[in-house]
Amino acid sequence: MTITEVATADVLPRTVNGVPVDDLFKTVDAIKATPSIAKFNFRIFNQWHNAAKNRSAVDMFYGAGQEQLRSKPFVLEADEPPVLLGTDAAANPVEHLLHALAACLTTSMVYHAAAQGIQIQKVESSLEGDIDLQGFLDLDKNVRNGFRSIRVNFKIKADVPDEKLQEVCQLGPGHSPVFDSLTNGVPVSVTAERL
Amino acid sequence: MTITEVATADVLPRTVNGVPVDDLFKTVDAIKATPSIAKFNFRIFNQWHNAAKNRSAVDMFYGAGQEQLRSKPFVLEADEPPVLLGTDAAANPVEHLLHALAACLTTSMVYHAAAQGIQIQKVESSLEGDIDLQGFLDLDKNVRNGFRSIRVNFKIKADVPDEKLQEVCQLGPGHSPVFDSLTNGVPVSVTAERL
Repeated sequence: MTITEVATADVLPRTVNGVPVDDLFKTVDAIKATPSIAKFNFRIFNQWHNAAKNRSAVDMFYGAGQEQLRSKPFVLEADEPPVLLGTDAAANPVEHLLHALAACLTTSMVYHAAAQGIQIQKVESSLEGDIDLQGFLDLDKNVRNGFRSIRVNFKIKADVPDEKLQEVCQLGPGHSPVFDSLTNGVPVSVTAERL
Repeated sequence: MTITEVATADVLPRTVNGVPVDDLFKTVDAIKATPSIAKFNFRIFNQWHNAAKNRSAVDMFYGAGQEQLRSKPFVLEADEPPVLLGTDAAANPVEHLLHALAACLTTSMVYHAAAQGIQIQKVESSLEGDIDLQGFLDLDKNVRNGFRSIRVNFKIKADVPDEKLQEVCQLGPGHSPVFDSLTNGVPVSVTAERL
């Protein structure tokens, strides 16, 4: 059952899993009427400090047909641990990637479960990914630079039968923007100019 | 010129761009002697709070042949802005993904430039990515759930000719684990059990 099919039923409580489902269905109806408002553009601005230390500011984005302001930017840090020649002042870039994936799978699952009226009590997830640094260090051209594989294990508390629990879990990979981006790949252009 | 070729020259100062290059070359030599120490395993543990709010703990990882401890976990938050039915308590998952990409491209460029003895004074990058929510909302099966494209623009301050500046910039996409993961895709398994 998709959000579109449920939206027409209009028999759900106002909030499920903390998600304002009436607003979710209004959003769906608004996009069906004006598909262009579904186009979002997300942005960050990153500044290098030293060695592996750098920092991103996350502020405005475009969506729902207009620039969306925030009261102040979020700041995200990055560093590497000593064994990777950093000072361990923050999580490293691939750990941030795992967080992005966990967060997106979880939110996608929780939103789509809410749209179906499925109440979830608790969600935890453990993620791990394997990287062989021979790729990054140009030591073996047969070794890729990035993750060879990532494993995600969810633990979910919800009053649903076992089979439904598996269906609920799959709402994440079935809808998550980060999961799709990471598993299917995204074209990324990189340009440079002088500062 | 690769790190391996430079390592044999052994004529560089101790630190370039804040990167301890002698240690970098020692790492390269150690991995050439024992390739298995290049295998790393990164992990996070995520807990859902409510609606779009969830939080990851980033702690131990495996690398250089042993478990690597941290004195305390890093905590990474996630939420969605009001227009996406959240409370805007933190950057959202796709913004975290852009941060991971910016951080990794920057660090990869800075490390490999350091290995070549190229001093960099400043690096900034602006990233943007396009998502059409008709995918996430099951409204158009021809629209993907994730980013359609991502654009990265670097501004670099370094005393090198224009052509070399472009080469330096490309050290990022040429080595970055997050860039490779995101552009070429990673197999991700998702399993669930009852909590």
